Amino acid sequence: MSNLNLGFSLYFQMYGRYTQDLGVHAKEEAARLRESGQRRSLSDRSRSLDLLEFKGRCAKCQICTVRCQKFLISRVGEDWIFLSLLGLVTALLSWGMDYCIAICEDAHKWMYGGLDSNVLLQYLAWVTYSVVLITFSAGFTQILAPQAAGSGVPEMKTILRGVVLKEYLTFKTFVVKVISLTFALGSGMPLGKESPFVHIAGLCAALLCKFMSLFGGIYENESRNMEMLAAACAVGVSCCFASPIGGVLFSIEVTSTFFAVRNYWRGFFAATCSAFFFRLLPVWNNDEETITALYKTHFRLDFPFDLRELPAFAVIGIASGFGGALFVYLNRLIVQFIRTQKTINRFLMKKRLLYPVLVTVIISTLTFPPGFGQFMAGQLTQKESLVTLLDNRTWAKQGIAEEFDYIGHSQAWIHPQVNVFVTLVLFIVMKFWMSALATTMPVPCGAFLPTFVIGAAFGRLVGESMAAWFPDGISTDGTIYPIVPGSYAVVGAAALSGAVSHTVSTAVIVIELTGQISHILPVMIAVILANAVAQSLQPSLYDSIIRIKKLPYLPELGWGHHEKYNIRVEDIMVRDVRYITLNCTYRDLHNVLLSGNLKTLALVETAESMILLGSIEHAQLQSLLSQQLGRSRRLEYIREQAAAEKKRLSMVSNTGSEEDCHRVSQEVRFQISTEESSFSPTRPSPLKPLKPALKRSSVAERPTELPTSKTHTFTDNSTLRMSPSKYILILDDGDVEDDMTLREITEWEEKQLDEQVNFNNCKIDPAPFQLVERTSLHKTHTIFALLGLDHAYVTSIGRLIGVVSLKELRKAIEGSVTVKGVKVRPPLASFRDSGTSSSESEATELHKLWDRNKNMSLPREQTPSESAEKSQ
Amino acid sequence: MSNLNLGFSLYFQMYGRYTQDLGVHAKEEAARLRESGQRRSLSDRSRSLDLLEFKGRCAKCQICTVRCQKFLISRVGEDWIFLSLLGLVTALLSWGMDYCIAICEDAHKWMYGGLDSNVLLQYLAWVTYSVVLITFSAGFTQILAPQAAGSGVPEMKTILRGVVLKEYLTFKTFVVKVISLTFALGSGMPLGKESPFVHIAGLCAALLCKFMSLFGGIYENESRNMEMLAAACAVGVSCCFASPIGGVLFSIEVTSTFFAVRNYWRGFFAATCSAFFFRLLPVWNNDEETITALYKTHFRLDFPFDLRELPAFAVIGIASGFGGALFVYLNRLIVQFIRTQKTINRFLMKKRLLYPVLVTVIISTLTFPPGFGQFMAGQLTQKESLVTLLDNRTWAKQGIAEEFDYIGHSQAWIHPQVNVFVTLVLFIVMKFWMSALATTMPVPCGAFLPTFVIGAAFGRLVGESMAAWFPDGISTDGTIYPIVPGSYAVVGAAALSGAVSHTVSTAVIVIELTGQISHILPVMIAVILANAVAQSLQPSLYDSIIRIKKLPYLPELGWGHHEKYNIRVEDIMVRDVRYITLNCTYRDLHNVLLSGNLKTLALVETAESMILLGSIEHAQLQSLLSQQLGRSRRLEYIREQAAAEKKRLSMVSNTGSEEDCHRVSQEVRFQISTEESSFSPTRPSPLKPLKPALKRSSVAERPTELPTSKTHTFTDNSTLRMSPSKYILILDDGDVEDDMTLREITEWEEKQLDEQVNFNNCKIDPAPFQLVERTSLHKTHTIFALLGLDHAYVTSIGRLIGVVSLKELRKAIEGSVTVKGVKVRPPLASFRDSGTSSSESEATELHKLWDRNKNMSLPREQTPSESAEKSQ
Repeated sequence: MSNLNLGFSLYFQMYGRYTQDLGVHAKEEAARLRESGQRRSLSDRSRSLDLLEFKGRCAKCQICTVRCQKFLISRVGEDWIFLSLLGLVTALLSWGMDYCIAICEDAHKWMYGGLDSNVLLQYLAWVTYSVVLITFSAGFTQILAPQAAGSGVPEMKTILRGVVLKEYLTFKTFVVKVISLTFALGSGMPLGKESPFVHIAGLCAALLCKFMSLFGGIYENESRNMEMLAAACAVGVSCCFASPIGGVLFSIEVTSTFFAVRNYWRGFFAATCSAFFFRLLPVWNNDEETITALYKTHFRLDFPFDLRELPAFAVIGIASGFGGALFVYLNRLIVQFIRTQKTINRFLMKKRLLYPVLVTVIISTLTFPPGFGQFMAGQLTQKESLVTLLDNRTWAKQGIAEEFDYIGHSQAWIHPQVNVFVTLVLFIVMKFWMSALATTMPVPCGAFLPTFVIGAAFGRLVGESMAAWFPDGISTDGTIYPIVPGSYAVVGAAALSGAVSHTVSTAVIVIELTGQISHILPVMIAVILANAVAQSLQPSLYDSIIRIKKLPYLPELGWGHHEKYNIRVEDIMVRDVRYITLNCTYRDLHNVLLSGNLKTLALVETAESMILLGSIEHAQLQSLLSQQLGRSRRLEYIREQAAAEKKRLSMVSNTGSEEDCHRVSQEVRFQISTEESSFSPTRPSPLKPLKPALKRSSVAERPTELPTSKTHTFTDNSTLRMSPSKYILILDDGDVEDDMTLREITEWEEKQLDEQVNFNNCKIDPAPFQLVERTSLHKTHTIFALLGLDHAYVTSIGRLIGVVSLKELRKAIEGSVTVKGVKVRPPLASFRDSGTSSSESEATELHKLWDRNKNMSLPREQTPSESAEKSQ
Repeated sequence: MSNLNLGFSLYFQMYGRYTQDLGVHAKEEAARLRESGQRRSLSDRSRSLDLLEFKGRCAKCQICTVRCQKFLISRVGEDWIFLSLLGLVTALLSWGMDYCIAICEDAHKWMYGGLDSNVLLQYLAWVTYSVVLITFSAGFTQILAPQAAGSGVPEMKTILRGVVLKEYLTFKTFVVKVISLTFALGSGMPLGKESPFVHIAGLCAALLCKFMSLFGGIYENESRNMEMLAAACAVGVSCCFASPIGGVLFSIEVTSTFFAVRNYWRGFFAATCSAFFFRLLPVWNNDEETITALYKTHFRLDFPFDLRELPAFAVIGIASGFGGALFVYLNRLIVQFIRTQKTINRFLMKKRLLYPVLVTVIISTLTFPPGFGQFMAGQLTQKESLVTLLDNRTWAKQGIAEEFDYIGHSQAWIHPQVNVFVTLVLFIVMKFWMSALATTMPVPCGAFLPTFVIGAAFGRLVGESMAAWFPDGISTDGTIYPIVPGSYAVVGAAALSGAVSHTVSTAVIVIELTGQISHILPVMIAVILANAVAQSLQPSLYDSIIRIKKLPYLPELGWGHHEKYNIRVEDIMVRDVRYITLNCTYRDLHNVLLSGNLKTLALVETAESMILLGSIEHAQLQSLLSQQLGRSRRLEYIREQAAAEKKRLSMVSNTGSEEDCHRVSQEVRFQISTEESSFSPTRPSPLKPLKPALKRSSVAERPTELPTSKTHTFTDNSTLRMSPSKYILILDDGDVEDDMTLREITEWEEKQLDEQVNFNNCKIDPAPFQLVERTSLHKTHTIFALLGLDHAYVTSIGRLIGVVSLKELRKAIEGSVTVKGVKVRPPLASFRDSGTSSSESEATELHKLWDRNKNMSLPREQTPSESAEKSQ
């Protein structure tokens, strides 16, 4: 058991663990394993007996379930069962959500339609409906689980990188995200379902893992759960668009840096199941006859496009690239504007729901169909817009719209006074900033579908223009193949959404979504061009959010990264490594802990040899120190003195103190965690509506793992020294009295500090990752990305000579390290920088988590300059 | 420069380098860098002047090219230029090859058709034509580049894993592969173009890299070239099938274990370019009107399939899974049968071309259209078969074939006497073993397309059966939707090829190939089921070849690998690590080298502390030892003695010896390489026709890198001790006479051996990869796969306690390690084992390379037991 536990710890030592210290983790694992061990130690029979006793009614059913489960696990293998279950559950969720959204939208239309006698009432109904839904969604999110807001893809990416963000995978988050997302999307705002669904699928997987672990032991393995989480990302996309292949690829591109091909089939299998069930449900519901594509198109197959149309497709691609970069920039600008404007910020903080209400009022006022909405097809929902945009027919032949008969929703695009081109342009422009604005609201929402629709509209615009320009098609062979504007819309949708998310796989998604592959080449060309442009201008939307939220990240090397091959580790490493030696005293330890703010410290043999032996977590050292100087040890010292006194007086053997000793060591073992939890802030979460950042799981949420009667609230020694008033004495051990004066304590501590450190109880990572001076930046990046490292030591034949952390690497990649006198920067990087730098004075909660250790030793406010330095 | 060199070396120390020692590599790199340095040191102007002087005629043109190139490289970036060039070149090659193959096939038909008066003549023409083409192809391959035979995908996989197989990426191989492949495919044998084309694309990329490196420095970077090679694999598939997305995915699945997502766009871009150009060429050639799919289908779009047809599709999937496993097994069985049958083997060895001739005669006799071929559509080429199998119409309605009118090639399937089902069954059965047999011929060939066709035939069979069973379709809603057997063929093709290659992406390939995505769900379901079955029975065809060829490989963890989470490194590691200490003597070194056959040795501080400092390549130690005991040092010793003698006599300062010293040290530096090259066998390659295994690049191929006048042919000390007769003395230094007797030499050596080793000139890998005891097998596998490791040391707080190499890991994964008394084996693994074990007595050339160091110290033949142990 403890072996397994150690295995887990090592896993995290290697894969980077930001939010929880090893001590806490080890403790949790130990508790979990102990629990499961107890559970397992009961035989099946006794378990079923237990069930009989406790559950009573449905016991037989449950025994049966357990047996079936056992049979399935033992006989067939469990991965595919889990994956198909995951697919089924997410498909049901997705379909159910779509169903509810459709009901909401219908209700919206019905309200608006029923009041057509009075425009003012109509307007009020139109706006109020959206406002109510969004307010409910935002309020529900804020109150119950602020972490459910936003898309969730950045967080999934961070989690898959190995960082533990426990709050993001809880049942509460799941419920809140599902309900809030349904209401947010039902409001008719330009919000997307796809990226939040990636998070929802991840939540499903995490919860299913937890649920399945009731039946078998496999589901307790962390690294296996990670693999399932990666598959879940694919499922999330797949069951939104019924695109299994595109889903897998999109999730790989968006969430991974290095992809394990052995996980590939998992993603494919789960995504296929999910897409299958998702499309099966409408068939069972008699909505559709058989399984087909979601937004089926009916373009010409025999001659899909002329080769001379390719430049137009390329133009769509390039323009979409710029558009995508602009969208990301705009989105970030809005967030940062609201954050930096102190007065606005303060006002919005007080009235937390004001911001979403304000945004909703603006957007729904502008889309009000009898008002401005008539010029931008405001009455259409996103789905309807997409269907009409992908339509087979040409809307404008030579600019005259009236020639055609329009059935269904296509009428919305035709305005008696206004040209269809104007409508399209207005739609694109308005929806563009509306989407960028709406996705900053603190509700669960994504930006994929809005950009998809805008891209389709842009493609349609180009297509209609082409159709107007060449009314008889381009081909000169005699046969007339008129231009199909709908195919341009397909290309545009793929290109813009690809540019925003920096993915190529939108090409696959769009093909699976429309059920036609004939335009694969134009789509691919446009998507690649859009990516080329967008990637050189801006980070992807998800990376942008990661930076805004200050999640730990590793920038990509980018397109033209050849100069990275010439930078070496010795150029970027920090030479002044903080280390401790094997024979150091507690005083040295204390000094090192006071001076630095590193998460881990290198352990070297001696200061002369500098041979790297391993690394120790900062918190481990803290605990060593507080153990040495802690109250229990001092009490023991007093006790011993008293005993010696007694001995001297009566020569009685002191058997009691040994027992105490044992108990004290037990106390000491769990000391870190209590210290941790006493530090971790359980502040009410709804304080910051606009910053649904990371939070450590509070103590209350943890199951009661330990006999807590013996645990004390120790405070850290260094904290004590800074603020003696904080020194809390809880005297629940009645046997020895703490009668030392403050001066005596200080003396005793000084004596203790001169002792040599005993590393026996300390958890040492015996194999921290090592690089050598000559390792290239390119390779360092690869290794950091592959192994999800946080830092690596630079050694030269066993001797420690430097350290490289994510910070240095980020700096080097983003171009502030000079090699051979030339400043190495990607082109147009300055444009990118200007966007990110203004938000640095903001310290989110995650930021604090990063610096937690530092805060522990020096509990003071960070100066802006420091945080600026850090977040570079 | 030397820094870069070191960087490279470290790259290979980490990523595993099997076929070349570091010494040789370092030397090559040094020479290459020196060359390029010289080249770069010339300014552009002087370069263009040079060009003027040397090229004369086309100098202006070349200056222009150089300038354009420079501009492009500096301004736009170079990756996309390279990738589009690569796409263009491979597309041209692929198209040209298809064109030539079509001509060959037409000629075959013309010959056969022109002789319809005499069946015997017809038969002779039919068989002879194939035999001649195959013989030419095989002979050409055997004589010029035996490594060009076979598919090349296993080798590409090995290369991408970080193993350098230089011979596989030469211009000669390229030419031979292209020409031989064209002839082999033109012969009408059931061979595939796709997998060899992956190799050809890889060759293109490698050669283009070399070519481009004439213009800029980026192309000299090894890791960048690796990235390009990975993209090239995608291009190879893409330009065969015009399937950019499928190509990228297939190449990822087939060649990678961990895929860097940052390479993703490279593959996509290059593959899109390639597919685009490949389909553009027929349009320019007026063969087609516009760009469409390669094997376009015209299935019904409105109601592609009934949900109740899904079980039939699933049956196709499962049956294809078994079929795919059987194919791999059969293929390996044939290879092993021929190898193990000593008499056959010896006979075939002598007449090397007899085997392909024999196979060709058998196969073409059976496909002879007026003979047995009439019952199995023998007259159709693979392309024609595929087109007819994917046909839209139903061949058999209620078993009667005559009802329909057949146009074109579909007639071949209809025999007046025989039912179309019999024809299909015969086709499947015959083609199955024929393809398995044909792909063992020593010509460039793949098995993807043959299995694709067989799968399509199987799908067609099921489809036709379904159509006969349900003549009016399955739907009960009133509308009659007849069953489309062609869609079953699509599903079958994807499933069988997916099962053979263990890939899911054949689903994407088949969709891009047919240009219809409506059947995506049946295809995905069938492919996933086929993979599930095939992966539990057999390794993939490519892995099977890797095992047969004994290339270094790391087995996958497989589907149900949950038990792997419980095995830890301490269960599998070798505790008896061979190490050297920092203060060891040369005698220790000698003993260690004699006793072990490890590629690298651990360097620890002292035998007591066991603190791991680094690892040293075996060859480096060999060179240290031979340097210490070598002739030059002995001569120096003699010289010094003589000088001392002189000094004692005349008290003259010896300035000359210092100079000698310098020269000697220079000699010593390149000593390893000459030693190496004197060892590396330059045996004529056509000796083993059936084993086109790996060979080290011979000395002749290397450019003249060094001033060779000073290099000696040193032999290794241990070799010397075993066989003193081999001790070659080439006295070209005239200044000192080697007047020591053999006894004096031995005495001198004994004295030398007692000296402490000086590691100053030795290249030490300062950061060998370290694991800890508790690391799980699952994680170890991940790390080995991620970093392409060959071995990793197991340390405990800096102390070396064990070592894990690929061998141990393979053993553990393939199930010969017991944990807690239970033998951990994947289900049905015994079936798999029985296939591989019989080939172990065969030692291919690669095998020898692996054991080269051992052979160097102990030049004797390997006993079978040893090799058996090794190849486990």
